[in-house]
Amino acid sequence: MSRLKSRRRADYLYFLSYRTRWSDNDQYSHVNNSTYNLWFDSIVNTYLIECCSLDPPTSKSIGLVISSYCEFFAPLSFPQVVDLGLRVNKLGNSSVTYEVGVFPQGGDEPSAVGGYTHVFVEREARRSTLMPSQVREGLSKLFLEEPRSSSAKL
Amino acid sequence: MSRLKSRRRADYLYFLSYRTRWSDNDQYSHVNNSTYNLWFDSIVNTYLIECCSLDPPTSKSIGLVISSYCEFFAPLSFPQVVDLGLRVNKLGNSSVTYEVGVFPQGGDEPSAVGGYTHVFVEREARRSTLMPSQVREGLSKLFLEEPRSSSAKL
Amino acid sequence: MSRLKSRRRADYLYFLSYRTRWSDNDQYSHVNNSTYNLWFDSIVNTYLIECCSLDPPTSKSIGLVISSYCEFFAPLSFPQVVDLGLRVNKLGNSSVTYEVGVFPQGGDEPSAVGGYTHVFVEREARRSTLMPSQVREGLSKLFLEEPRSSSAKL
Amino acid sequence: MSRLKSRRRADYLYFLSYRTRWSDNDQYSHVNNSTYNLWFDSIVNTYLIECCSLDPPTSKSIGLVISSYCEFFAPLSFPQVVDLGLRVNKLGNSSVTYEVGVFPQGGDEPSAVGGYTHVFVEREARRSTLMPSQVREGLSKLFLEEPRSSSAKL
Repeated sequence: MSRLKSRRRADYLYFLSYRTRWSDNDQYSHVNNSTYNLWFDSIVNTYLIECCSLDPPTSKSIGLVISSYCEFFAPLSFPQVVDLGLRVNKLGNSSVTYEVGVFPQGGDEPSAVGGYTHVFVEREARRSTLMPSQVREGLSKLFLEEPRSSSAKL
Repeated sequence: MSRLKSRRRADYLYFLSYRTRWSDNDQYSHVNNSTYNLWFDSIVNTYLIECCSLDPPTSKSIGLVISSYCEFFAPLSFPQVVDLGLRVNKLGNSSVTYEVGVFPQGGDEPSAVGGYTHVFVEREARRSTLMPSQVREGLSKLFLEEPRSSSAKL
Repeated sequence: MSRLKSRRRADYLYFLSYRTRWSDNDQYSHVNNSTYNLWFDSIVNTYLIECCSLDPPTSKSIGLVISSYCEFFAPLSFPQVVDLGLRVNKLGNSSVTYEVGVFPQGGDEPSAVGGYTHVFVEREARRSTLMPSQVREGLSKLFLEEPRSSSAKL
Repeated sequence: MSRLKSRRRADYLYFLSYRTRWSDNDQYSHVNNSTYNLWFDSIVNTYLIECCSLDPPTSKSIGLVISSYCEFFAPLSFPQVVDLGLRVNKLGNSSVTYEVGVFPQGGDEPSAVGGYTHVFVEREARRSTLMPSQVREGLSKLFLEEPRSSSAKL
């Protein structure tokens, strides 16, 4: 878990701020874990629409989530505002793995880090397909290679 | 319906901006009606917390919603940003009726206008009670009297 | 408010049961008001799909919500199960007003009663249009005329 | 990924059925990935409340999610009904890792498999603590040891 906990804002390339909503807090008066997944979807799709020319209602290929994950380090609570940072950790021809850092407004230590993998499929047939070239080009701008793990260093 | 449709930003006194989320859009690719209720809860409770000293996890009295309503005039769609405006239409000793105008970012014609009535109750017993004085004082700053209806004008 | 509070199960014609979800409860440990709107959408659209042959991804006309309302009489709390009852209060050629009663599982007194008005529009142009004949036929089976108000009885 | 995809109903010990809701479908007309996390929270907390005597509004210790994951194998779509199966994969004194299988109603092949890890903390101080004995006892009934991986078999 330590690897993701050590993320800082400088590890991300595209940022958006979101207000928490009353319904994000659960009975324990902090933001529920499922809200973080809503945020991942929101920043990823905003980037695809605004920076990669994706038009969800009409695009021939769409991104399906095949796996998701999140690690939680510190609680958040309504009405806090959060800053989300986005990066791409893997980029293939038909799939992409995103990572999102969730920061309290202005903070540099993440409350949570998570993300998911999109596989692009044909809208109707839902068969795997190449992602649109504008999408791949846009996503490549967020790609950051991981440093080799310390065990590999000599 | 025309009365609420003619609301403008100048009819509201407290504003917050919210990003739409991917999940706000439904199958018809516009923001689902239930999202507006989530926004009403969010701006009302943000105001109660930040401007009226309400602390939801510990306050002795809490506001329960006893009725809600919304009229929809124009669609919104993710990833639009919305500006919410809040006013108080009725203010009693134990209840308050809020109205929220939902505007596309920077726009002056509402996409929707709605709100709800809070009755304050004791946290445990859930019996009606006076609202805290700081809450009533804060809410009174958002109170705007309606002009008499035209039928009453001579 | 009393008129809706006096609704009983016999006032509704189509029923579905829903489990509450953890996220339905808000900080005050009861089901949040906005959850009821999610339920209205769910029973209405289930009826449209299963009993009126509506296919949301492909239908030429779609129902847009133009106004919604809800009155709340008694709290619910996760993990309660709720029984929803559906009726149609007004049925035109291009619009319909639904009413939904929300009952605790097996109970006869509603926790809340609300609903909304759908106007059917062309999918792309979003101009008002006749509802599909199968939809109108299906909805007519749920139509219940209100008794005249007592003040009108002589 | 293949390990979780091969799960069957017999791999789970506690089941609940949930109706999908209209809002669960996203613009692509299938259940959005974040809905699965809402379901995980729902079956886990229903089990904790109904079978482990946990009372979320008053319990001295509460379970915080520290990591979550989900793998998606086949789409679901409103108004389908889903059957959720719950098991416990790891059980310590202060933490537990749940796994949930999401099946289309009556089906034996999962649409998705995921879950999360709860760490129990003191309600106010949020320091790690032992889980209540009734909780641990209840969870132990759902514990299923993984068979050793085939590579380890000789």
